[in-house]
Amino acid sequence: SIDGQRLWSSLMAMAEIGPTANGGSCRLALSEEDAAGRRLLIEWCEAIGCTLRVDRVGNLFIRRPGKRDDLDPVATGSHLDTQPKGGRFDGILGVLAGLEVFRTLHDQGIVTERPLELVVWTNEEGSRFAPAMVASGAFAGEFSEEYTLARTDRDGVTLGQALAASGFAGEMPVGEPRLASFFELHIEQGPVLEEEKEAIGVVTGVQGMRWFDVTLRGQPAHAGPTPMTYRRDALAAAARLIDRLQAHALADISGGTKVTFGCLEIDSPSRNVIPGEVRLTVDLRHVVEAELDALEARFDRELAALTEAFGVETASERIWASPVVNFDAGCIDAVERAARAQGVPYRRMMSGAGHDAVYVSRVAPTSMIFIPCRDGISHNEAEYATPEHCALGAQVLLDAMLERANT
Amino acid sequence: SIDGQRLWSSLMAMAEIGPTANGGSCRLALSEEDAAGRRLLIEWCEAIGCTLRVDRVGNLFIRRPGKRDDLDPVATGSHLDTQPKGGRFDGILGVLAGLEVFRTLHDQGIVTERPLELVVWTNEEGSRFAPAMVASGAFAGEFSEEYTLARTDRDGVTLGQALAASGFAGEMPVGEPRLASFFELHIEQGPVLEEEKEAIGVVTGVQGMRWFDVTLRGQPAHAGPTPMTYRRDALAAAARLIDRLQAHALADISGGTKVTFGCLEIDSPSRNVIPGEVRLTVDLRHVVEAELDALEARFDRELAALTEAFGVETASERIWASPVVNFDAGCIDAVERAARAQGVPYRRMMSGAGHDAVYVSRVAPTSMIFIPCRDGISHNEAEYATPEHCALGAQVLLDAMLERANT
Ligand SMILES: NC(=O)NCCC(=O)O
Ligand SMILES: NC(=O)NCCC(=O)O
Repeated sequence: SIDGQRLWSSLMAMAEIGPTANGGSCRLALSEEDAAGRRLLIEWCEAIGCTLRVDRVGNLFIRRPGKRDDLDPVATGSHLDTQPKGGRFDGILGVLAGLEVFRTLHDQGIVTERPLELVVWTNEEGSRFAPAMVASGAFAGEFSEEYTLARTDRDGVTLGQALAASGFAGEMPVGEPRLASFFELHIEQGPVLEEEKEAIGVVTGVQGMRWFDVTLRGQPAHAGPTPMTYRRDALAAAARLIDRLQAHALADISGGTKVTFGCLEIDSPSRNVIPGEVRLTVDLRHVVEAELDALEARFDRELAALTEAFGVETASERIWASPVVNFDAGCIDAVERAARAQGVPYRRMMSGAGHDAVYVSRVAPTSMIFIPCRDGISHNEAEYATPEHCALGAQVLLDAMLERANT
Repeated sequence: SIDGQRLWSSLMAMAEIGPTANGGSCRLALSEEDAAGRRLLIEWCEAIGCTLRVDRVGNLFIRRPGKRDDLDPVATGSHLDTQPKGGRFDGILGVLAGLEVFRTLHDQGIVTERPLELVVWTNEEGSRFAPAMVASGAFAGEFSEEYTLARTDRDGVTLGQALAASGFAGEMPVGEPRLASFFELHIEQGPVLEEEKEAIGVVTGVQGMRWFDVTLRGQPAHAGPTPMTYRRDALAAAARLIDRLQAHALADISGGTKVTFGCLEIDSPSRNVIPGEVRLTVDLRHVVEAELDALEARFDRELAALTEAFGVETASERIWASPVVNFDAGCIDAVERAARAQGVPYRRMMSGAGHDAVYVSRVAPTSMIFIPCRDGISHNEAEYATPEHCALGAQVLLDAMLERANT
């Protein structure tokens, strides 16, 4: 069985690449730090006889041979990129738990029927390049190779350029290889398991999410002599939008509605200038697709109302929509059996965050395993999961993969 | 009398230094562009026999000798620095109208009893270095030389460093020379004169203003799995503050209350991260000092309420307070007589914007002259005043200065 201490050591070693002031990590997708993290993983995997292939959007496929290499592999994996002030577990745990599965099998001289594959997906976070999960999306046929490589960061660098600079632009056509099944271990990134004192989440699907880029255009003017009634204040308009949608989401006592404004920028800001233009991002989520439609309609109405109330022009572009996902019943059951075998409390649950498994599930039977994280906090340097929970998650992953790889 | 065409040509020539995409100017205080603008002015003034002195905070004093140079000079002036996307008139008109006064007297061989002084005040806008009007404030004893030179821009450059780099760090002690009186011509920067079809504003004083730096500290967390009720969203809190104070100001039907949030920044923004920390600036103004006190108290209450409503810690620092100013009755009357002599409609009015005249009025009898600006718009590339209004304003300035310089 899994060596929890070894898994923890590899997590802590990875966290030393791109460390942040308060104990987190910063490895933005395809940055020098992200590339260094990938090189460390590859070194570890090659030391135990695995081989690497890289596809044209930079996804890494690390293979452990099986008895029957003509069969499609059973795969696991996640991502190594982080948020600007990210944690040490989000994505990384899923990758390094896959490494730990390989190391455990290696130590015990076990060769599975099917080959195994550890996958590192490019740019999962969506922080440097939007949308999130773009390279697993390309793998699953949701985004074309061209679209994926043309994603642009704030400095105007394309994903393709960053990929070339990182040394991870591969040759394998996007979409290869076919996977027999896919399991992804991840921290929950929310508070449910911890609150309910459960050790494993058997993930049955993922809530739907939609991303928007919004621009509000008013009129810059002097803060002093411009009467309140004359103003066309783009920031006051943005504040109204945020406050209204925040109240709307809070009013949903089911807790299903989620609204987040992560970025907001004023054009040419100055203390004594009424903001003339504001750009902001909107993230809408819901576990029920029809409710997500209703939420988007509400957002559209609140946005439209700003024109009359504040004299601003509004523009909104939906840059990404990921529908509600339901995972494969067989894979869910395999995870549930593995969790039950550990004798720990677990629950079936939906994921609030998007994961590469969302897109992979379109082309391979898929499910996920969650472990609790402290205070439900993630996308934060303080993100933490205990060594025991990490080891338990890796053990459930090993067992579910073995079941699938030997049948 | 004034040569309106010459004045207009010098305005347009100055606007070519640091031009912006949409017909405005960008000459941030003590930038290379600001220095180039100052050099052009000095060249023009020296060509008509004026002499330059520079004080230790970079204020320029350009003297036209009188018959009795033992008497204190009658002064005019304003500033040449602009907002990041500023206009061609704010400040510049007051300086170049002073130049036009000198040129007109020079052409006609007139020598006044008292000497005349054209002053260019450093960093009036407050955009690069806060507070605004810092160098006229230093001249008037409101700020020490040390405090003034230690003001810091966003890149950490001090005003003193920028001054040295610009070549305008002078030798004259701050506070010299003593001024017999001071007149400042400026565009109104608001809509009143245009709306009322009046050509001149006889400015009787300036509304009070207070500037604050505010920090809201919540908890960054993942936009997907974090329940709305768990969040400590610093941007949602900022939005509530802005929306509440905006509504409060709009509810004052007297129009006296003004509230502006010019800058807002999220720490480490990312689309799918709940903002953990937001910094914003607040600008509060009122024509009545006691009402400004009440407005600040209201602001404090709304800020304090965010802690319970959003779980954020709040910190607010008042970085500047400029009390309501009433100008000198004699100088106001001189301007009114000069306006009346032109036979144009004029009104007595308060200024909504701060001006260098605010601080100068503490050490010398002072008043101001306003002309209309199109749609009341200022701090905006589209800022515009007609050549006729510019010439009219300069004429009123000339007449008021002559009255004071010959008695
Ligand atoms: N797991 C994760 O942080 N994914 C990023 C996509 C999202 O915002 O849910
Ligand atoms: N005139 C002018 O724009 N002054 C800047 C100070 C203020 O914000 O009022």
